[in-house]
Amino acid sequence: MDPKSASNLSFILNKPHDVAFADRPVPSLQGPHDVLVGVNYTGICGSDVHYWEHGAIGHFVVKDPMVLGHESAGTVVEVGSAVTTLSAGDRIALEPGYPCRRCAPCLGGRYNLCPDMRFAATPPYDGTLTGFWVAPADFCYKLPDNVSLQEGALIEPLAVAVHIVRQAAVTPGQSVVVMGAGPVGLLCAAVARAFGASKVVSVDIVESKLAFAKSFCSTHIYTSQRIAAEDNAANIKREADLEGGADVVIDASGAEPSIQTSLHVVRMGGTYVQGGMGKSDITFPIMAMCLKEVTAKGSFRYGSGDYKLAIDLVAGGKVDVKRLISGTVPFKEAEDAFKKVKEGEVIKMLIAGPNEKL
Amino acid sequence: MDPKSASNLSFILNKPHDVAFADRPVPSLQGPHDVLVGVNYTGICGSDVHYWEHGAIGHFVVKDPMVLGHESAGTVVEVGSAVTTLSAGDRIALEPGYPCRRCAPCLGGRYNLCPDMRFAATPPYDGTLTGFWVAPADFCYKLPDNVSLQEGALIEPLAVAVHIVRQAAVTPGQSVVVMGAGPVGLLCAAVARAFGASKVVSVDIVESKLAFAKSFCSTHIYTSQRIAAEDNAANIKREADLEGGADVVIDASGAEPSIQTSLHVVRMGGTYVQGGMGKSDITFPIMAMCLKEVTAKGSFRYGSGDYKLAIDLVAGGKVDVKRLISGTVPFKEAEDAFKKVKEGEVIKMLIAGPNEKL
Amino acid sequence: MDPKSASNLSFILNKPHDVAFADRPVPSLQGPHDVLVGVNYTGICGSDVHYWEHGAIGHFVVKDPMVLGHESAGTVVEVGSAVTTLSAGDRIALEPGYPCRRCAPCLGGRYNLCPDMRFAATPPYDGTLTGFWVAPADFCYKLPDNVSLQEGALIEPLAVAVHIVRQAAVTPGQSVVVMGAGPVGLLCAAVARAFGASKVVSVDIVESKLAFAKSFCSTHIYTSQRIAAEDNAANIKREADLEGGADVVIDASGAEPSIQTSLHVVRMGGTYVQGGMGKSDITFPIMAMCLKEVTAKGSFRYGSGDYKLAIDLVAGGKVDVKRLISGTVPFKEAEDAFKKVKEGEVIKMLIAGPNEKL
Amino acid sequence: MDPKSASNLSFILNKPHDVAFADRPVPSLQGPHDVLVGVNYTGICGSDVHYWEHGAIGHFVVKDPMVLGHESAGTVVEVGSAVTTLSAGDRIALEPGYPCRRCAPCLGGRYNLCPDMRFAATPPYDGTLTGFWVAPADFCYKLPDNVSLQEGALIEPLAVAVHIVRQAAVTPGQSVVVMGAGPVGLLCAAVARAFGASKVVSVDIVESKLAFAKSFCSTHIYTSQRIAAEDNAANIKREADLEGGADVVIDASGAEPSIQTSLHVVRMGGTYVQGGMGKSDITFPIMAMCLKEVTAKGSFRYGSGDYKLAIDLVAGGKVDVKRLISGTVPFKEAEDAFKKVKEGEVIKMLIAGPNEKL
Repeated sequence: MDPKSASNLSFILNKPHDVAFADRPVPSLQGPHDVLVGVNYTGICGSDVHYWEHGAIGHFVVKDPMVLGHESAGTVVEVGSAVTTLSAGDRIALEPGYPCRRCAPCLGGRYNLCPDMRFAATPPYDGTLTGFWVAPADFCYKLPDNVSLQEGALIEPLAVAVHIVRQAAVTPGQSVVVMGAGPVGLLCAAVARAFGASKVVSVDIVESKLAFAKSFCSTHIYTSQRIAAEDNAANIKREADLEGGADVVIDASGAEPSIQTSLHVVRMGGTYVQGGMGKSDITFPIMAMCLKEVTAKGSFRYGSGDYKLAIDLVAGGKVDVKRLISGTVPFKEAEDAFKKVKEGEVIKMLIAGPNEKL
Repeated sequence: MDPKSASNLSFILNKPHDVAFADRPVPSLQGPHDVLVGVNYTGICGSDVHYWEHGAIGHFVVKDPMVLGHESAGTVVEVGSAVTTLSAGDRIALEPGYPCRRCAPCLGGRYNLCPDMRFAATPPYDGTLTGFWVAPADFCYKLPDNVSLQEGALIEPLAVAVHIVRQAAVTPGQSVVVMGAGPVGLLCAAVARAFGASKVVSVDIVESKLAFAKSFCSTHIYTSQRIAAEDNAANIKREADLEGGADVVIDASGAEPSIQTSLHVVRMGGTYVQGGMGKSDITFPIMAMCLKEVTAKGSFRYGSGDYKLAIDLVAGGKVDVKRLISGTVPFKEAEDAFKKVKEGEVIKMLIAGPNEKL
Repeated sequence: MDPKSASNLSFILNKPHDVAFADRPVPSLQGPHDVLVGVNYTGICGSDVHYWEHGAIGHFVVKDPMVLGHESAGTVVEVGSAVTTLSAGDRIALEPGYPCRRCAPCLGGRYNLCPDMRFAATPPYDGTLTGFWVAPADFCYKLPDNVSLQEGALIEPLAVAVHIVRQAAVTPGQSVVVMGAGPVGLLCAAVARAFGASKVVSVDIVESKLAFAKSFCSTHIYTSQRIAAEDNAANIKREADLEGGADVVIDASGAEPSIQTSLHVVRMGGTYVQGGMGKSDITFPIMAMCLKEVTAKGSFRYGSGDYKLAIDLVAGGKVDVKRLISGTVPFKEAEDAFKKVKEGEVIKMLIAGPNEKL
Repeated sequence: MDPKSASNLSFILNKPHDVAFADRPVPSLQGPHDVLVGVNYTGICGSDVHYWEHGAIGHFVVKDPMVLGHESAGTVVEVGSAVTTLSAGDRIALEPGYPCRRCAPCLGGRYNLCPDMRFAATPPYDGTLTGFWVAPADFCYKLPDNVSLQEGALIEPLAVAVHIVRQAAVTPGQSVVVMGAGPVGLLCAAVARAFGASKVVSVDIVESKLAFAKSFCSTHIYTSQRIAAEDNAANIKREADLEGGADVVIDASGAEPSIQTSLHVVRMGGTYVQGGMGKSDITFPIMAMCLKEVTAKGSFRYGSGDYKLAIDLVAGGKVDVKRLISGTVPFKEAEDAFKKVKEGEVIKMLIAGPNEKL
């Protein structure tokens, strides 16, 4: 296939609830380390839906039409002259954010904190719901034979979960409470199990999500009540037999009551990681953090080694991401998939193509 | 001196604002590893004053008359049969909390988190404003010749600061912002300097405290304004030339606006430690913590190695704790000293005795 | 049963190859935190065999008759007045070394480095091949219902392996090479797998041991050749597809050629842990350690949390220690079991009793 | 000045002991992030002398004529279009090794382990004893006003020492033994003091070097005797009052007896870092490492943050590198300076120019 003559159909957000398909020029390699990728499958993330509905997330505002999507797998079409690790035809998971490689965070091994990050579908940068995509070769991860391209599109949210669980430094034998049983919460629970946690408690307000969590990976589940955070925490400790509290608590919800519960359910000297996004400012039990000497950490996207480990976990049968795929729609029905995600009846929707036949 | 026949005068809180002196029985060694200490000097802590005024701190409530005080230095009077490291006459700093040595935190090296801690002047345990005190030998630290007993009484708050700065893992060349310039804030700033921080910014609302901080150890000072936390943070960054924010922020105030500023002034990937006590729940910029991938930690009292390092810092001339001593009063004037601390006109008051002549 | 009137049969080493059975007095609780344990099963360790043959290990010399054995499980017979976590009849794994709880390593969370450790069957301290044993309650670990007393006797060597793998800080997705496929090497390999290592390569000179390793836990095996260490390392890298070398190498053999191979097979920036005992001084590729910036660590016995995790791994089905038990002999045949271990035809021999009927 | 028309005099090693001066073409910027630097001062490193004498270090063999030198400071002459942090005329310290920025070590924050590193004066790459040098802007560090260009040439060996001390994770109050009092050993001792070590013991066989160490930074010195390593270790412990051994030992000598002494002088649970280069294989007390649970680490060149901290230490008056400069010779006398370094009568020789007048 000659990409120069190919169509490069893209799914574009003009403004909130105003989307369009357009055939944009096929991009060219920018340097000898780049590869051109034909996009095969893309998952829809909550952030994509948020831009679609609101046109902005915090201070990231969509001012010009922007291609959506950043959870993609694809097939290598062309490689730059210095690329030795990939060839045309390789099936890859696509890491969608490119750091400067030159700032202190980049040189120090925390490139996800690069202030000059160019991240797909984050204004002003276009996303991956497009025909062809140019990426540096070291951000394209070859899929093993036993990992499908559909699973490849799930590597992005799995890498988010891997980064969160690594921030939490989960070790074998620990007890882990995960607040929230959406896609990231489910994946955090599964990754915590893969890291050897002996108890993983999923907490949500929706019982059907918890039923799925139980069947997917969690050893315990708890349905949050409309009661004080201390009381929900006490219930979780009692029901999951967490005397003294959980070694690790991960909030994958971003919801204020969940975060409050997190600080009350973690044990003395335990670790709490904030993985979910929500309100900028909340009422927070600061003295619980102080007096229990809790280590609290934020977690932002993913960094060095996270994609590689995410793929290893899928290839090694540790996390069965296939089970999260609620359905796959053709590229032209992308907006319908967004609507389904918004309605909350699905876990993860994939959009095929536009190059699913590569 | 035969302690059996000695007076054991003690300063006792009956209920809020109701104190008394009483001659209690001289305590006996409880086991072969114990030593009997004659108390020479005791500093007054904010928590002592809080009990004196309110009769409680959180769920610690003074129900029975309780001896106050826990920042003490003294002289060894008698040693148990298994004690090899101390002899009668040794001048020591007294660590005032005794863990169980058998629980998971104790065996794991974090004895300050022991749930069975017996801590001086924390109900139901008596404090050290008394003539004689029994402690395990390993919680009595011999003072070098060039450290006075008055300085020895300052080792306790200095150990609090050492623990905070260790929680923050300050390393040479870093920039550190310390919110609050009371005794613990000042000592945190001084310890951060001793750990090699190249910039230490003290922040407070009282200019006279900041003037002292500047003369004591801080490279920069900033007077907090009644403006938004983001704006105070921006001012601190600009005035102290902290492009991108501070590597480490320590809140030694417990005040809500200070904690909010802490999260806004810390850099991407930086560390914030909550060292001061205040309201249980506050409005907290949780997304700043999450998106900047901040490591936040509580700090509670002190633990393994903190007293030893505190003494080393004084003996080595790194922290001149003498300068914090605003005055020393005789034992019988203890309540006056409490009043002075409450009025806030002093940094650290010492109470001599009752055995200052040992 | 009244232990006061019971027999306390013990298996005693008088001098090399001179053993005896004697009925020693039943020991008494030394303090309120102690428990009295009837010993049910004891495994034989290489160090027991070494004392039996040579009467000494390094500077630990058997001068007076000494009870052998330290890998035991038993049943609680009596508890001290302050014990709340155990009751008579509880089945437990017995941690056989008791630190002072007062030195810097003890207070700092590394009690295995306590200079005053009293360790079973290490002169001058008697071992656990005896009827009744007194231990502090926090060194007796209750066995879950699904863990047998025979498995309980394997917790000790498993804790050795847990400590080694923790020293190595193995994390999910890593490649781990384990030199040696004796009991500790096999358990290190199994624990590394439980910690999420995606490749575990067992290396030995005995093919039958490697065949067992492969069936037990290892993903790859390699039979060491009588060739240069660099060449064995190159072979391991090629056969296990470890481009650039292994993330972690554990030497569980103590053999000089294995240690040399370890340093050549570890990758740039990788970790090597010395877990096995052997010659005091060897020829060592120091520049490989330096130029690859390897982290090398010793590992000595076990410490905080290791027994607990070892039991969790067995209870959770992660490590099937039963498979290592080659046979169980009655107490009176203890010396025969020692002979079998010496001959090397078995993996782990258990000695039942003398109280196996408790 | 127009570098295009300038001379680019270079000091070139043809083969062992055969050097020449040649006017090579002035190099051009290779990309928008590069800067062109006029070289002002260059220090001579032991590795430069080794190439000059032997034409090789290990498997790095000088096959074609190679410019020597890699410890340089200079002045920015031209900046690429994307450079925002530097301007012509800026005085800088030059980090002389350039990693690929794309491999796992680079992305993981350990670029000194990059397998594709291009390092100055390491075959086949030319060094910095030349008129003009092209470097990426992020490897050029602006010197503060109070740091001279001569001091700037010392930043390279100081960064080596910073990396070693960071590998050792020296913290305040620790005791540190440094084996070797050559330039790197002296700088390690000084950096350890700046990191807050309360005792720093320099060890060497040359008393005059130790006398300098004592005047420069060390709290204690010890002259190594021709006795067993254990005995030298015992002497050091006794003379420096290191009961139980040193917290940290750094070998900056590479000499076999020093490395052996290192393992015997480090305490239980302590840290030993191999910073000096020597024989590939030595007799090593492996059981001392194992039984004391020592953490041993290699240290190779320098990485993220090391140059920045080295400059901070000089600018802040913590390490007075000027005192190490034994003399400065004109560029045309470079070979004489090499001879002086070889003879061992100097600490650090600088070669001025060829552009010292910039």
